[in-house]
Amino acid sequence: MNNNTKIKNETTSLGGVPAVGDAYRAWLRYAPLLPDQAKEYAPWCGKIVVASSGTAPLLAPAVEELAAGLGSMLGREPRRGQAADGEGCLVVGTLDSAELQGVADDAEAKALGDEGYVLRTVDEPGRRFIAIAGRTDRGALYGAFHFLRLLQTGRPIADLRIAEKPSGKIRMIDHWDNMDGSIERGYAGESVFFREGRFLEDPEDRKRLRDYARLMAAVGLNAVAINNVNVHEIETKLITPELLPSVAKAADVFREYGIRLYLSINFASPIEIGGLSTADPLDPEVKRWWAERAADAYRHVPDFGGFLVKADSEFRPGPFTYGRDHADGANMLAEALEPYGGIAIWRCFVYDCLQDWRDRTTDRARAAYDHFRPLDGKFRDNVILQIKNGPMDFQVREPVSPLIGGMRHTNQLLELQITQEYTGQQRHLCYLVPQWKEILDFDTHALGEGSTAAKAATGELFGRPLGGFAAVANIGSDLNWTGHLLAQANYYGYGRLTWSPELTSEQITDEWARISFGHDPVVIGTIKRMLLESWSIYESYTSPLGIGWMVNPGHHYGPNVDGYEYSKWGTYHFADSKGIGVDRTVATGTGFAGQYHDVPAARYELPESCPDELLLFFHHVPYRHRLKSGKTVIQHIYDSHFEGTEKAEELVKAWRSLEGKIDEERYESVLDRLQLQAAHAAEWRDVINTYFYRKTGIPDEHDRKIY
Amino acid sequence: MNNNTKIKNETTSLGGVPAVGDAYRAWLRYAPLLPDQAKEYAPWCGKIVVASSGTAPLLAPAVEELAAGLGSMLGREPRRGQAADGEGCLVVGTLDSAELQGVADDAEAKALGDEGYVLRTVDEPGRRFIAIAGRTDRGALYGAFHFLRLLQTGRPIADLRIAEKPSGKIRMIDHWDNMDGSIERGYAGESVFFREGRFLEDPEDRKRLRDYARLMAAVGLNAVAINNVNVHEIETKLITPELLPSVAKAADVFREYGIRLYLSINFASPIEIGGLSTADPLDPEVKRWWAERAADAYRHVPDFGGFLVKADSEFRPGPFTYGRDHADGANMLAEALEPYGGIAIWRCFVYDCLQDWRDRTTDRARAAYDHFRPLDGKFRDNVILQIKNGPMDFQVREPVSPLIGGMRHTNQLLELQITQEYTGQQRHLCYLVPQWKEILDFDTHALGEGSTAAKAATGELFGRPLGGFAAVANIGSDLNWTGHLLAQANYYGYGRLTWSPELTSEQITDEWARISFGHDPVVIGTIKRMLLESWSIYESYTSPLGIGWMVNPGHHYGPNVDGYEYSKWGTYHFADSKGIGVDRTVATGTGFAGQYHDVPAARYELPESCPDELLLFFHHVPYRHRLKSGKTVIQHIYDSHFEGTEKAEELVKAWRSLEGKIDEERYESVLDRLQLQAAHAAEWRDVINTYFYRKTGIPDEHDRKIY
Repeated sequence: MNNNTKIKNETTSLGGVPAVGDAYRAWLRYAPLLPDQAKEYAPWCGKIVVASSGTAPLLAPAVEELAAGLGSMLGREPRRGQAADGEGCLVVGTLDSAELQGVADDAEAKALGDEGYVLRTVDEPGRRFIAIAGRTDRGALYGAFHFLRLLQTGRPIADLRIAEKPSGKIRMIDHWDNMDGSIERGYAGESVFFREGRFLEDPEDRKRLRDYARLMAAVGLNAVAINNVNVHEIETKLITPELLPSVAKAADVFREYGIRLYLSINFASPIEIGGLSTADPLDPEVKRWWAERAADAYRHVPDFGGFLVKADSEFRPGPFTYGRDHADGANMLAEALEPYGGIAIWRCFVYDCLQDWRDRTTDRARAAYDHFRPLDGKFRDNVILQIKNGPMDFQVREPVSPLIGGMRHTNQLLELQITQEYTGQQRHLCYLVPQWKEILDFDTHALGEGSTAAKAATGELFGRPLGGFAAVANIGSDLNWTGHLLAQANYYGYGRLTWSPELTSEQITDEWARISFGHDPVVIGTIKRMLLESWSIYESYTSPLGIGWMVNPGHHYGPNVDGYEYSKWGTYHFADSKGIGVDRTVATGTGFAGQYHDVPAARYELPESCPDELLLFFHHVPYRHRLKSGKTVIQHIYDSHFEGTEKAEELVKAWRSLEGKIDEERYESVLDRLQLQAAHAAEWRDVINTYFYRKTGIPDEHDRKIY
Repeated sequence: MNNNTKIKNETTSLGGVPAVGDAYRAWLRYAPLLPDQAKEYAPWCGKIVVASSGTAPLLAPAVEELAAGLGSMLGREPRRGQAADGEGCLVVGTLDSAELQGVADDAEAKALGDEGYVLRTVDEPGRRFIAIAGRTDRGALYGAFHFLRLLQTGRPIADLRIAEKPSGKIRMIDHWDNMDGSIERGYAGESVFFREGRFLEDPEDRKRLRDYARLMAAVGLNAVAINNVNVHEIETKLITPELLPSVAKAADVFREYGIRLYLSINFASPIEIGGLSTADPLDPEVKRWWAERAADAYRHVPDFGGFLVKADSEFRPGPFTYGRDHADGANMLAEALEPYGGIAIWRCFVYDCLQDWRDRTTDRARAAYDHFRPLDGKFRDNVILQIKNGPMDFQVREPVSPLIGGMRHTNQLLELQITQEYTGQQRHLCYLVPQWKEILDFDTHALGEGSTAAKAATGELFGRPLGGFAAVANIGSDLNWTGHLLAQANYYGYGRLTWSPELTSEQITDEWARISFGHDPVVIGTIKRMLLESWSIYESYTSPLGIGWMVNPGHHYGPNVDGYEYSKWGTYHFADSKGIGVDRTVATGTGFAGQYHDVPAARYELPESCPDELLLFFHHVPYRHRLKSGKTVIQHIYDSHFEGTEKAEELVKAWRSLEGKIDEERYESVLDRLQLQAAHAAEWRDVINTYFYRKTGIPDEHDRKIY
């Protein structure tokens, strides 16, 4: 199948003004509530009082959002009032304000940190209001979005006793946007930041960017890198006075919603634009040059977040050229940023990308750990290592990277991929929250049981000063932001998880479905089932048992079993007529399994204890090897591909059952993609099954059609 | 390996003035002769007399070429004289001139046709000259190039009795050049015609174009299509008054050397640029529109050749859209061109390019014959069908298309590919003359034994009014024209074969080697051996036994056994654990073998009589099937890949043995490519052998390294 298969209607890119429809409004849709619900909420929502003791710029967007949201949901916009009284209202502000005295005690308030909030129903004689309050205005902003979400999801508000704060300090989105307007691995139109080498700065573009910032803040995100980590020629100049005024204008938009802007930088900048002869991180001239760039950046953007760096990776320049290591490189940048409170985010996606497929001793899966583990403790406190969730590259199924929880003295960001590079490219429904939950809940055993990847990432586990999450965005200029409308749930879910990694998939899915589609139990039940099963469905008809890849090289769409088998990328399955899989054991293989802490290391080392879904990632086994499921590997391949394709067809049926219960525009656009998915799933099924049948000569036990 | 591997030096594109070196001069190098040789030739070459009875514009370039060539080879440019005398000179002209009376008798002269010539040494008292004479000035021009070739190759001239004429009327080169300067399947720089949407019209560009026309005429070529058969937006306008003035200027250059210019056209032009609502070939408006375009073309280019058309092929528009057939389409264009003597060349490369790989009943190899054979006799006399040499697409090895010799009442052009799309892309040495000789000598048995493909193509076999050869050029803006210097031999050889298909590979190779590298027997012997073995070497390490493909999709470089196996292109090998090959027999397969006349049909039908090198093209056989060579198929695969790679290494050694005997520039540039070839050959060997070893589990009998 062609990667350029046309998809209808909703993917049309915005020329200028976004058409304001449900698809565009996404989780800030604020659909009118049913009369019963409205009746319950209205008594509290007639008036908004702002309460702060000093400057609190983020209260303005909080109030604006509440006014718009409540107006839309309740049919009447609340008044702005000067003070709470006995009639019921919302008081939005900071806990140190007079109006909110006593709403939280000191201990409670302190526990909220800089971003937390309380939602409290105060119902005392003469004092009748709902407090939406943080220690900071930023906390109040997040509280406002939480309060709106309660109404969107139909929760009671008469007795609120909510206190929340985010799990990690940095909750980031990475855009792989290029200034020509293209997006690397983007499947939803063009960049919302750039076009033809320039920033998009028309009022309509600003409006869209502001709406995007609202969507981010609504799910608690607080950091954004606006340009691709592969920094090309023009983008190298983003850190210069030539482009910083435009960067500053974009930062203004995000600042309004409490989001700090980061730039991806080119490690070779001192040479490419600085006129220096070296980019050696220990060279005094180079250090001075970067210090000047940091100063420039903060002159234009006072709350600039810092630099994001992909170095010595996939042909990007880096410190290796000068015989230096990653710590030298990262620390040099961190030092430049330190005076301003900025941070250097250094990606760990480093491996040998000129590998010889004949060489089975080199293992790309080992690379990040091998490179960075020895440097633990050598990074400055304002360096964060950004670690991809798996040791390979955002495959449908990978084990969690052993580097997560592998470094005690180094700040970490766990990097996920919202954009569906290897998971169907937003043509296939693949809801990733269940995958992310498995990753976050993975027990690294770094400090014994309960040492989850989430805790390692946030810094909680080792008491690190910084930590959190980053993910590659799946949005673009498409009217519905994400191409596949249901892919909005991935962005939403990512944001929610960065705030509260303990939320269940079920909870997040329920929230998103209700916010997006209302409260009809049939609709919500159906959509939730579709979402929650979709990753498993996609996995079942693509590459089996954790082996990964088997996609067309380059664009990564569609089945191609040998697509990466004879390549330089270190991505092999080693399937021959007898068996398949990569031996990554300590005993007989590459030793990758030994990079984990004791418990997972032991589990992965033996085929008997290795989970079925990761078997071929860790072991080379005969096709007749029996899985824990009782099936042989080859029969599992056949079965999962036949069943996965059937389930992809059932997704179409399930969606069709909702016809008339969803607005036609969203209904048709999703149907279109689900049908495409079912057709492509059949292609996957036939190619994979045929490949293995032709290679093994072992027939399907159920004698189904294989070509 | 990467398709973009850098190759050094000589591939630098010309900005402006061509550097005049041996590589650029190619077969018009005119190297100074050794004193002995010069002494033999000089007595005849001191003076040139021009002889014609009327206007004879092509005598001017003939004399200019002789003067330059002789001047360079003999060290002294000949004088121009008014008349022959007893002292020895060259008389160049037409047979009807006074000076050349009696040089050929009437029957001889008539037999020469419009393009033939005689080279005669006249050594009588008072009449001592060498006649270079045609019935036409065009004949004399070709005669002049022949005469120069005699000196370049060291032949005696004291007693010349040569009479020659070309085998086919049309001896054509197709350029797949786009107006943006790119060349589809070009491996030697950019277009010499276009850049950035415009014609190259600077004096330096004209100089290069004129040199190119000289190179063409020197090997007897008389037709050129300057733009890609895939006609994009700008190129569609080549037939309009907007671009025809530039077309005319290019035609002026070629006209000087007797070459007619053709344009590839877009069948949908009446819609795309004509403002009509249809391109239906039977629509009177459409007919009128094309008649006007033809009139325009001839107004600007009085000797315009005609239109070349790729229609209803690989997503190009065509008559099928309107329920018409190829005859309707071609005849409509031919009718428009007929008043001016133009011709419509209609390509037969038509097949289902949205095939389902699961469907084994559809056979792309059948397509051209199935489409066009039923139309035999329906085409106008000024239509020529251009038929690719094989039924698939310019593979390293294919049978000859059964359409060649399959149509008695239709003009044919045999289409070859000089540019090395599937034969190493001018990084690998692959001298194609031996392949073309096999094609030309193939006995179709259309009218019994001796009905060669060459005779079918020229029209001789069925007494057709038109016929000949077309080939896709391998030249571009690289200083040496062809990227790989030795690839010049392919262009040269193509031209020579179109004139004289009966020439042997050995003859052509000897000529080219001497012209290009002089007469040192070690140098000539080595280069000839390298050239003559190179196709066989390339075949041996690429896809085996005529099955073809097994290349990376899109760019077609480098090994990828399953690259096209699950594609829509109809290009499959069907390798499973037990066997490989496509059953194209009448008895059990697609029936393609039955498209041939009786003798070849019977030969291909049975594995026992099918030649080894085409076995897998016609038959699906087990890996242990024994070839006529005595080897099993699988052992043949292993052996040929090991041996082919060794031979690629031996090419490097052979070339190295010539160090110091060839100018350094040409020596280094060829060495560079041969080394690249040896490395890539090893990649081919390992990927192909590993693929089949993994699939079959059958070990190499000689226990060599397979991965």
